Amino acid sequence: MKEIRLINIKEEILSDNQNLAEEVRKRLSDKNIFMLNLMSSPGAGKTSLILETIRRLKGEFRIGVIEGDIESLVDSEKIVAEGIPAVQLRTGGACHLDAPMIDSALNTLDLDAFDLIFIENVGNLVCPAEFDTGSTKKAMILSVPEGDDKILKYPLMFSVCDALIINKIDYLPGSDFDVTLLKERMKALNNPAQIFEVSCHTGEGLDDWCQWLRNEISSHPDNSVS
Amino acid sequence: MKEIRLINIKEEILSDNQNLAEEVRKRLSDKNIFMLNLMSSPGAGKTSLILETIRRLKGEFRIGVIEGDIESLVDSEKIVAEGIPAVQLRTGGACHLDAPMIDSALNTLDLDAFDLIFIENVGNLVCPAEFDTGSTKKAMILSVPEGDDKILKYPLMFSVCDALIINKIDYLPGSDFDVTLLKERMKALNNPAQIFEVSCHTGEGLDDWCQWLRNEISSHPDNSVS
Repeated sequence: MKEIRLINIKEEILSDNQNLAEEVRKRLSDKNIFMLNLMSSPGAGKTSLILETIRRLKGEFRIGVIEGDIESLVDSEKIVAEGIPAVQLRTGGACHLDAPMIDSALNTLDLDAFDLIFIENVGNLVCPAEFDTGSTKKAMILSVPEGDDKILKYPLMFSVCDALIINKIDYLPGSDFDVTLLKERMKALNNPAQIFEVSCHTGEGLDDWCQWLRNEISSHPDNSVS
Repeated sequence: MKEIRLINIKEEILSDNQNLAEEVRKRLSDKNIFMLNLMSSPGAGKTSLILETIRRLKGEFRIGVIEGDIESLVDSEKIVAEGIPAVQLRTGGACHLDAPMIDSALNTLDLDAFDLIFIENVGNLVCPAEFDTGSTKKAMILSVPEGDDKILKYPLMFSVCDALIINKIDYLPGSDFDVTLLKERMKALNNPAQIFEVSCHTGEGLDDWCQWLRNEISSHPDNSVS
């Protein structure tokens, strides 16, 4: 009985969340803002990827970052050190960001001052996949040291993302991580998703990733009609 | 309002869970079974550590494994290949194991046939820290590629564990992971926890870890009086 009650509550929460996510998306779209929800395990490299992307794109776009973190401010401090505004959401124990949290973060920003907003979600391959934040697109990072079998264990995350970034490819030599196998499984599960192989340490692959993001921003419906 | 409702429900669930966890612990204690709840991020090396521990301790203890996984059977298959019984809990989307799940897993086992049971929790540094499974002790793995700042971001997990296993130390050369700093922060947060530095790849440090487990099993109150 307990389990049935829990599931109903969860569905209700997810449905309320979805409605607000649509409102958030409309609000961003009215302002021509592209918002990317970036998800991964702890330590896969979300902050590093955001920092490297900022360094490559900050001349072209006005960028902001919403940082989800359970307790600390360490990621926001790194973003601000790059001269980019950051909003820190302290989730206080919650294992994912949801649309109400993003809505309140957006309320603290002047939306006329941004073209591109990154959401750095809580490090978790489970719950963030279930909660629409109102983002324009979703991307996930899988880092090589995590192993190539994560797509079998956390399929929802791999199936909801628009881009899969395989990070820390500088760890590939000597590792048993099978990029070809992962790509085959990803094609079978989520064929439209774009796959990137990058290293935020060496810089390899980051230009391709930034080019995809640039294309997505310019082909964003609200930009194509403007 | 929504948030207040959610928190109340969660508290109720946690309290029901806690009551059942105490029953599970009593049940295991009556059978002189030591159960270890092993937690970490995805890909930090839970299955590898369990396999390496089994190889070192299976001559001394009758071991079983309860595998939590959202979808796949890959970890259980590796355990069974070592000749050890495994119970696979398919959580179907849940991001942690709880006492009712462990209770039902234990119902499928002949408890007279085990001295040591490992729980491999869902790969997640957030929710598993909140749910008592009824285990005798809790251990967590942090792997070097995840970074030394995870203790700042997921402090609850680091504060509830009885042992912290720093895994993949073969990645330390060339990495900026600061073991000394992590240990200082751990001492400040959770002084009684034991800290181990291991590599399941090279085998380094695993004997110390196994010795700790051996001592814990033999100093387990129910064993000391038997």
